[in-house]
Amino acid sequence: MTPEGAIQTSSVRTIEWVGEIDGYARLIDQTLLPRETVYLEVRDVETMWDAVKRLAIRGAPAIGVAAGYGCVLGLQHVADEKSVSEAQAALKQAANYLATSRPTAVNLFWALERMQKVAREAQAQTAGELKNRLLEEARAIRDEDAAMCRAIGQHGAELISEGANVLTHCNAGGLATAEYGTALALMFTAHENGKQFHVWVDETRPLLQGARLTAWELMQAGIEATLICDNMAAHLMQQGKVNLIVTGADRIAANGDAANKIGTYSLAVLAHAHNLPFYVAAPSSTFDLSIPTGAEIPIEQRDPTEVTAPAGTPAAPEGVSVYNPAFDVTPSLLIAGIVTEKGIIHRPDTDKIAELLS
Amino acid sequence: MTPEGAIQTSSVRTIEWVGEIDGYARLIDQTLLPRETVYLEVRDVETMWDAVKRLAIRGAPAIGVAAGYGCVLGLQHVADEKSVSEAQAALKQAANYLATSRPTAVNLFWALERMQKVAREAQAQTAGELKNRLLEEARAIRDEDAAMCRAIGQHGAELISEGANVLTHCNAGGLATAEYGTALALMFTAHENGKQFHVWVDETRPLLQGARLTAWELMQAGIEATLICDNMAAHLMQQGKVNLIVTGADRIAANGDAANKIGTYSLAVLAHAHNLPFYVAAPSSTFDLSIPTGAEIPIEQRDPTEVTAPAGTPAAPEGVSVYNPAFDVTPSLLIAGIVTEKGIIHRPDTDKIAELLS
Repeated sequence: MTPEGAIQTSSVRTIEWVGEIDGYARLIDQTLLPRETVYLEVRDVETMWDAVKRLAIRGAPAIGVAAGYGCVLGLQHVADEKSVSEAQAALKQAANYLATSRPTAVNLFWALERMQKVAREAQAQTAGELKNRLLEEARAIRDEDAAMCRAIGQHGAELISEGANVLTHCNAGGLATAEYGTALALMFTAHENGKQFHVWVDETRPLLQGARLTAWELMQAGIEATLICDNMAAHLMQQGKVNLIVTGADRIAANGDAANKIGTYSLAVLAHAHNLPFYVAAPSSTFDLSIPTGAEIPIEQRDPTEVTAPAGTPAAPEGVSVYNPAFDVTPSLLIAGIVTEKGIIHRPDTDKIAELLS
Repeated sequence: MTPEGAIQTSSVRTIEWVGEIDGYARLIDQTLLPRETVYLEVRDVETMWDAVKRLAIRGAPAIGVAAGYGCVLGLQHVADEKSVSEAQAALKQAANYLATSRPTAVNLFWALERMQKVAREAQAQTAGELKNRLLEEARAIRDEDAAMCRAIGQHGAELISEGANVLTHCNAGGLATAEYGTALALMFTAHENGKQFHVWVDETRPLLQGARLTAWELMQAGIEATLICDNMAAHLMQQGKVNLIVTGADRIAANGDAANKIGTYSLAVLAHAHNLPFYVAAPSSTFDLSIPTGAEIPIEQRDPTEVTAPAGTPAAPEGVSVYNPAFDVTPSLLIAGIVTEKGIIHRPDTDKIAELLS
């Protein structure tokens, strides 16, 4: 059985549906990466709940896709000839259950609500018809995310010149999305277009997403990549070994100030000092126009053991004080451009952002 | 038995001699830090060789002291009434043996040669007299290093204002020297002078000397310290939570360009971008006037597993390419001052450095 719409791609397919309504979801178990590449065949809603809960699948867009497929799995036991209301009841039960897997994941709730809205508004005559309509919707959630990431890649690939040295931070890759990712989408697309280039991968302390996930994704795609510690980036810039920096973003204010994984602001300042362009790649849904500047973005503090025990091994003295901010905020003045699925906003400011989003 | 010249100090006594010629060397086992604080009583030359070999004692000045005491241990078996030439032969044997413990440590050879020169020139009549003269010399090596570090601390302590937030990188602390260290000497002295301040400690990937050693030393001294990942420093500067940066140096060119642990240059650029002073603390022996600028300092590449396996635990994909430079070079233009045992060279350049060293 061939996965839906499978085409030759540089990016890993993080999660997809295999077969028709009696099929299953297939997803890569991210808890085993990068040491083992294991695809899970998820055939019931409980297993999907568990996969989301234990971070076998992670990243906001990917969790949304998992929620959609999870709803379909929760409907499979309803026989096709049963009533629409019976299928709707089963869907509601599955959705309520899946909502408890990661209660703070906004995309989880967004996808569950989207599935239920379709169920309410569908003109189905039987449970069978509704089930097929919901599989179609779950696939649409996946395909829309993949298309958006692909569009980001197509707009941004031009920024990577032949022979370039790109530096990236954290994992803005396919594993957080249906496929392709955001920052890495530029690289996957440039690679598919036949460009030769090289990527420096920041390991991204404290949780090492660069070392664990980004390095793996680039190696899988056959893109030349080299892992570094975060504090080595400046030295590479000084030596002329970096041409541009591309990262993702978690939240972008109306003026273009961008919150992203801790360490991103450091790269933006270093890039500016070395006259290198610093780009952000993110879908337009990342913009939060309700906040005028990044000053209003709160910085979450995370568990001290992430810092004191690198890769899980205690290294620091017991009882040491720790500061562990999850994010930092890069002022838009340091950003050469924001790559979205609608195009690139060069030298972003409030007016240009409002125009692109309107 | 009280260690020689023991006084109340903020800094750990890394290595010292206990008692007279029949005594022993006592050193802190750095392989167990920061989880366990164990002092080794080293009573023979084989045990000292082993301590140097397995990095129980490390840091150029501290290794020099270990070599001096190791020579004394190698002479203890020669009875006092024996001839001077018998003692000289035993010393030669001990020195040759100790030289194999860390064949690339320049200070090891420097100290062994200094001990043998004293033995050649001493006007001793008996082995006993020579042994005492050599213990005196070994103690002098330790005391001279401690005094130099103390002088660096006394000159530099004024740079730390009441209430300041200091940021440091790697371990330029007492553990690498007889006591006090270089960058940390400023902090120990300011603390002894009754100043209240706070230190941000870069964990210092890949080998985590900040997390393992610097955090421990500051906690031992009762100085308020907070551990961060290296990529968090810029965010702290952006938030106005850093007032000055102080690091050590491994080698300084005639014009003031300074090589130090990888990540130091990054801090210097970030400090400059945030209008913060960046200081280097190092003894005058660190200057290498034979190289006019830092461009001539070769950058050693180290083992990739230091990067792929943080704190010894594999995290990155097998077979990933790694770039792991041991050092970087900070141009003197980014250095607000170099603190030496002879005084502070503000805004260092070739002329000012030549003048101080002359």
